[in-house]
Amino acid sequence: MNIRLYNARIMSMEEAGVIKEGEIWISGNVISYVGEAKEQTEELIWDREIDCNQNLLMPGFKNAHTHSAMTVFRSLCDDYNLQDWLNNEIFPREANMTGEDCYELTKLAILEYLTSGVTAIGDMYLTPETIADACNDMGMRCVLVSGLNKFGPALCVMEDRYNKLNGKYDLVSYKMGVHAEYTCSRELLEEVSDLIHKYQAPLYVHMSETQAEVEECVGRYGITPPALFEELGLFDFGGSIYHGVHPTAEDMEIFKRHNISVITNPASNAKLASGIAPIGEYLRQGINVGIGTDGASSNNCLDMFREMFLVTALAKLKENDPAAVDAIKVLSMATVNGALSMGLEDCDVLAEGKKADIIMIDLKQPNMQPINNIAKNIVYSGSKMNVKMTMIDGKILYEDGKFADGIDVEDIYAKSNAILERLR
Amino acid sequence: MNIRLYNARIMSMEEAGVIKEGEIWISGNVISYVGEAKEQTEELIWDREIDCNQNLLMPGFKNAHTHSAMTVFRSLCDDYNLQDWLNNEIFPREANMTGEDCYELTKLAILEYLTSGVTAIGDMYLTPETIADACNDMGMRCVLVSGLNKFGPALCVMEDRYNKLNGKYDLVSYKMGVHAEYTCSRELLEEVSDLIHKYQAPLYVHMSETQAEVEECVGRYGITPPALFEELGLFDFGGSIYHGVHPTAEDMEIFKRHNISVITNPASNAKLASGIAPIGEYLRQGINVGIGTDGASSNNCLDMFREMFLVTALAKLKENDPAAVDAIKVLSMATVNGALSMGLEDCDVLAEGKKADIIMIDLKQPNMQPINNIAKNIVYSGSKMNVKMTMIDGKILYEDGKFADGIDVEDIYAKSNAILERLR
Repeated sequence: MNIRLYNARIMSMEEAGVIKEGEIWISGNVISYVGEAKEQTEELIWDREIDCNQNLLMPGFKNAHTHSAMTVFRSLCDDYNLQDWLNNEIFPREANMTGEDCYELTKLAILEYLTSGVTAIGDMYLTPETIADACNDMGMRCVLVSGLNKFGPALCVMEDRYNKLNGKYDLVSYKMGVHAEYTCSRELLEEVSDLIHKYQAPLYVHMSETQAEVEECVGRYGITPPALFEELGLFDFGGSIYHGVHPTAEDMEIFKRHNISVITNPASNAKLASGIAPIGEYLRQGINVGIGTDGASSNNCLDMFREMFLVTALAKLKENDPAAVDAIKVLSMATVNGALSMGLEDCDVLAEGKKADIIMIDLKQPNMQPINNIAKNIVYSGSKMNVKMTMIDGKILYEDGKFADGIDVEDIYAKSNAILERLR
Repeated sequence: MNIRLYNARIMSMEEAGVIKEGEIWISGNVISYVGEAKEQTEELIWDREIDCNQNLLMPGFKNAHTHSAMTVFRSLCDDYNLQDWLNNEIFPREANMTGEDCYELTKLAILEYLTSGVTAIGDMYLTPETIADACNDMGMRCVLVSGLNKFGPALCVMEDRYNKLNGKYDLVSYKMGVHAEYTCSRELLEEVSDLIHKYQAPLYVHMSETQAEVEECVGRYGITPPALFEELGLFDFGGSIYHGVHPTAEDMEIFKRHNISVITNPASNAKLASGIAPIGEYLRQGINVGIGTDGASSNNCLDMFREMFLVTALAKLKENDPAAVDAIKVLSMATVNGALSMGLEDCDVLAEGKKADIIMIDLKQPNMQPINNIAKNIVYSGSKMNVKMTMIDGKILYEDGKFADGIDVEDIYAKSNAILERLR
């Protein structure tokens, strides 16, 4: 499809927060032009020309850490702390989940991502094969991340998936990762280290989410989780840590040294009372920070607007400084920085040659009026209701409140509810 | 108009969080029936019968503290603390605002309230007469609150407004109030006390919003703002304080003693780095707590869903307890408790004889699926995009993303943008 999006405001995110008027051309799955209004050349035939009516085009949000299929646990087990929630509520129910369940429940999550302008996800969950199928079938860009742990499939399964799932679908890649220090033995972590060295692969992991987790690791090994992972060589090829709520100053040095991104999940960290991550300090240290929703059981929604506001609001509270982590920085985290953390540099900004992962923000809703500082407004006032269009890889999947033809919403709801009844 | 809303789930809020299936009848501006599906009697003629399609009906949200016309300052002056923001950014611009400006800008805010399911507001701002006009013209229920201070109109103006604005419009009432301790002289506060005793009127005031405010008051008078107001008799007939971020244990006793409600404004308090109000402790003390958005300059949106999530999320962080201030308590705050704080007991719940202030929550959006604990889901996962209908005083003002006939959205936007250009 060749699509022309004209009469638009464009925030390309090449320079964070800068907005220009113009238009964008999409040829297949790639952006072929971004710039001022331009005369159509003769040889181009548009499948669609969309008058953006002065609404805003920007890169889609990158939800850099989630567990999509946990939609089934939404509002099922609230008001617990992380360890009780995981051990007593989540793990026993997950034991009964099938790959087919994950497929359907991931599709439900993707519907919600589309309403929130999310065009790529970093997904760590039980059955990567069926998550990959769901993303491919729905058109969602997905970086799968292994959640290897001592209870789950063996190391060879992760290696097998790494080789089979990378390259299987254009929209899907697969990264090596472990669930967390506290769900892995030292022996297993050493084996993982061997494997990432074999492939020179970055590593992804939940880390320093709660104070208790850090203390237990120090109790076991005498060092913090980041120090342990560094010692084992697990950070030798970069990667990301999820949460990073309770780092020491030394941990921050480790992240810098190994080019580790921190993915913050403020709603989940608040709801589970895990704490507030020191985002301002990460930024001052020059560490790359992305944003994730975490799963729908600990959040409970998959809404990058709520996350963006929380990142800045909680930073202001934590630092007792209303200027802390301002809106423009947060916009970068939710787009470019998240893309960087997942190895998605080909769809980070709106520029010629980049993948066409584009959203349109409806500025004609009352929460965006009057038209003042649009970039700040998206972070401080934006809402899912402002997402007028979500395009992934050149395909419009959500537009004016409707999902694309071929997405059977009622069927996804029915199957999700049936799974809930079984797992409740 | 006689309207029948059938095939619905109903959360009347008579018992917080309890949901039953059934239907609601509206006769004029009053609810005439709430209960199980019922055969239509012969003499009733419906103007509209709406199949709710198993979506949820609940009381509209009560935004118990806002400054509606501050929509013009949205994203204009962010990232300041309260005192710098007020003194350097807001007050100088407000000096150039006219009553007509307030009228138009309040209408813009009302559009946003309708998208967020807000059916009543507690509004403290410059020109109550034109705010009243805007609310009456748009159909918004409004409790006006005086923001009397040493720079503004004299005490006699407040008394005059009290007598003229109460009773002028069915949808509008007027309460006595002062802006804050730090913007009033002791002499003025004493005169206000005489006036509220003359009318036996409750008092409304910004109070204990920042630590600096409390300390300055202690410096001036040797006691905290609540203690001063008690000493001056300003709490003798109840009322509400806005914010209440930094109360002492003694302050809480004062609020209890005088039946003072606390209206919490978590987004504003976070964005201005004022702090986190001790909501859990207020509840344990039996103090009535409502929720407000505050104005669009310090928030920057007028979204009760975001406020509700923040109330519980910040309480969990503050108390380091994931069970703190759970979702059902927050739902009560956002509806019944807010109504109580504003003297709106006639539109607090869905019951026969109550005013028809009703919203429909769209459960067919992905963030509400699967259908599990709907009440918790509204607080933990809800969004403006779930507001399928907003009815105030029996009139449907917003439905399926469209405003009622007679509401000229483009005109409101155009006028708001023109005012912005003048005041910027």
